[in-house]
Amino acid sequence: MKLAILKENFLTSLNIVNRATSRSITLPILNNVLLSAEKSFLQLAATDLELGIKCWSLAKVEREGAITVPAKFLISLLSFIPDDKINLEVKNNILSLEGENYKNQLKGIRAEDFPIIPGVKSDKSLEIKSQTLAEGLSQVIDTASPSQARPEISGVYFSLAKDSIEIAATDSFRLAEKKIPLAKFPFEQRFSLIVLQKTIREIINIFSENPGRLKIYFSPNQIMFESKMAEVSHPQVQIVSRLIEGEYPNYKEIIPKEFKTQLILQKQEFLNQIKTASLFSGKINEIKLRIDPKQGVLEIFAQNPDLGQSRSQLKSKIKGDKIETSFNYRFLVGGLVNIKSREVIFELNGEEGPGVLKPAGDESFIYVVMPIKSG
Amino acid sequence: MKLAILKENFLTSLNIVNRATSRSITLPILNNVLLSAEKSFLQLAATDLELGIKCWSLAKVEREGAITVPAKFLISLLSFIPDDKINLEVKNNILSLEGENYKNQLKGIRAEDFPIIPGVKSDKSLEIKSQTLAEGLSQVIDTASPSQARPEISGVYFSLAKDSIEIAATDSFRLAEKKIPLAKFPFEQRFSLIVLQKTIREIINIFSENPGRLKIYFSPNQIMFESKMAEVSHPQVQIVSRLIEGEYPNYKEIIPKEFKTQLILQKQEFLNQIKTASLFSGKINEIKLRIDPKQGVLEIFAQNPDLGQSRSQLKSKIKGDKIETSFNYRFLVGGLVNIKSREVIFELNGEEGPGVLKPAGDESFIYVVMPIKSG
Repeated sequence: MKLAILKENFLTSLNIVNRATSRSITLPILNNVLLSAEKSFLQLAATDLELGIKCWSLAKVEREGAITVPAKFLISLLSFIPDDKINLEVKNNILSLEGENYKNQLKGIRAEDFPIIPGVKSDKSLEIKSQTLAEGLSQVIDTASPSQARPEISGVYFSLAKDSIEIAATDSFRLAEKKIPLAKFPFEQRFSLIVLQKTIREIINIFSENPGRLKIYFSPNQIMFESKMAEVSHPQVQIVSRLIEGEYPNYKEIIPKEFKTQLILQKQEFLNQIKTASLFSGKINEIKLRIDPKQGVLEIFAQNPDLGQSRSQLKSKIKGDKIETSFNYRFLVGGLVNIKSREVIFELNGEEGPGVLKPAGDESFIYVVMPIKSG
Repeated sequence: MKLAILKENFLTSLNIVNRATSRSITLPILNNVLLSAEKSFLQLAATDLELGIKCWSLAKVEREGAITVPAKFLISLLSFIPDDKINLEVKNNILSLEGENYKNQLKGIRAEDFPIIPGVKSDKSLEIKSQTLAEGLSQVIDTASPSQARPEISGVYFSLAKDSIEIAATDSFRLAEKKIPLAKFPFEQRFSLIVLQKTIREIINIFSENPGRLKIYFSPNQIMFESKMAEVSHPQVQIVSRLIEGEYPNYKEIIPKEFKTQLILQKQEFLNQIKTASLFSGKINEIKLRIDPKQGVLEIFAQNPDLGQSRSQLKSKIKGDKIETSFNYRFLVGGLVNIKSREVIFELNGEEGPGVLKPAGDESFIYVVMPIKSG
C-alpha cells in the first residue's frame, strides 16, 4: 500500500470509524482500524462484531494494499501532525506516515486477520434526510432500557408503515414514540425491526450535523445506513449493524386515547420547577403534583426529612378533573427535555393511570409515563 | 435574618466561596456556607480550616442574623430558581427562599457552630493587578510537587524583593520562576513565604477573569488576598490561608548562568513534535534530542518495541556545541505550555546539565529541567 492523503480528511474519517472499535482484550485486532487503498480512495473500517463502520476518503493511491493499526493511537498521532499531505506506505506490516520533516512508523497487524464486515444485500431500502432521522432518534433513545435483562426493550423499535417511520423506545416505566413522515412508501407491506441501542447512538453522533441524505437498507438480520457523498471533502459512510431478535411489546396499547385532566404549560418553567423539587425528593425520586382546574394552578411539592421542602406553583390552562398524584421526577424530565416546543401538553388519567407529555401543536412525538402508585 | 437579594449576585458569590468548602465527613459543617446579614450586605463564608473565603453581596437587609446551609445544595437550588429577587428568611434554623411562585425551605446548622475564619491583621501589604498575579501564578503552579512528602515544595514560594515579586515552584525535577515587577516596594527588607498549592489554585480560578486589583496582606503564619470592589455588582472577596512552615530550597543555585548550546525554536511546532514523539516513548517517558549546529537542525526521536518509532526535524538558529541528550517529554511540555511567546529559547548544558526554557524577548519567566541521565 502506498498513497498520499490530506491529514484533515484522514482524521475526519478515522474519528467516524473509531466509534465502532471496541476495547477488546481477547481480540486486540478489534481496537484496530483497517486501512485499505483501492482505486482513488482510502477505505477505513472498524467493528466490534455487532456494529461495523466503513468510511471512504479521497486519496492519491500509488499502490493498492491494506493493513490494520491501533485506531486510538493513530488519532492521537494525526492530531499532532501538521495539517498537510501525508504519505502512507506499508512494508513488513509497518505503516509509515511521512511528511516534509517527520517520519512515524507504526506496527500493524496484517489485514487478513481483520474480521469481515458483511454488507447488506437487500432490495428493501428507503431514503431519508440524515438530520431528520438523527433528531428523531435522539428524542427516543434515552427512554430505551439500559439493562439487557429484556434484550428487545434495550433496543429501538422501527415500524415502517404506509406513510411514516415510527420509532419507539421504552424501559417499561415510560415510553417515547416519534413519527417521521415518508413522502412515499417503497414497500409492499408494513414491517418492523429492533435496532441495537449503541448503533442508534452512533447514528445520532455521526449524522446530527450532516446536511446530506441517508439510505437505509433492511434485511432480516441486519440494517445498513449509508450516507450519500454530498461533497468530495465529506467522507462516504456505511454503518452495518445486527438486529435484536424477539418481539417488541405492543406498546400502542398503553398510549391513552383520552384524558381525565389536561394542562398546557410553559415547558421551561415546568422543567425548572420539577428540577427544584427534585433536590428535595427522596430515594424513589418522588415529587407530588396537585392540579386545581378551578384556580388554574399546578402545584409541585417535595419533601425530605433531612434537607427540607420545596413548593411551587405554575399557572396553566387546565381542563378536566382536579387531581393529586406523584411522579418519579427523572421520568418527567426525560420526557420534557425531548420536547422542542415552548409549550407542552400534559395529560393525566387519574392517580394511577398513565400520564402523557407531548409538544403543543405537534402530533409527531408522544411520551407516556406511569405515576408512582400511592400506598 | 431577613433580606432580599438578586439571585444572580447571590449565586456568583456562592460559587466563589464554595471553592473553600471541603467534603468533610467528620465535620459536616465544613460542607456548609455561612450566610450572615449585616447592614446592607449578605456575607458568605466557607472554609476547610486551612483556607477560608468570604464574599460580600449587596442585599436589602430587614433583620440581621446568620445561618449555615449546605453550599453545593444551595448552588443547585439557585440554578433552577428564576433570575429575580429572592426573599431569604431564617426561622428555627430553617432558611426559606421565597419568590413570586415558590417557597423552598432548607434545613441549616446554626451559625454559632461554624469555625471562625481569622482575618489577617498586618501592616505588611501591597497592591497588584488581579489578572497579572493570577496569570503569573498559573505559569508556575503546575510545577509544584503534587506530593506532601516534602511539604515546603508542595507549595508556591513568594519572595518579595526591592522591585519585584518572585514566585517559584519545583518538584525537584524541574523548576519554574516568574518575576512580576513592582512599581514601589512598600517594605523595609526583603522577605519570603510559602503558600499552599490549593490556595494558589483558587486565586487563579477566582481572579483570572477579574479586571480589578488585589491587596495582599502578609503575616508570619497567614496570607490574605482581598479584592477591591470595582463595581457594586461585583462581590468583594477575601481569601485567607495558612502558610507552609519550613525552608524553601535555594533554587537560584541551580539556574544555569551560561549555556553550552542554545536554540531558538517555533514553540508550537516544537510542542507538536514532542507530543508526536511522546506517543512512542516508553515507561520513563523518554524522548531523545539530537542537536546539530552545523545543519541548524534539532532532531527528535522516540522508539517503542511494541508500537514503532517517530523521528522529526525542526529547523532552528543554533549556537554552541553539538549534543545528544534525553528528556522526560512531560517535563518539556510542562515548561512549553507556560511560555506565551511564539518563539522559545532552549538552552542546554551538556548531556547531564540542566536545560532551560524561556520565552524569546521576555526575561520574566524561566523554566529549568533536568535531562534523563544516560546509562
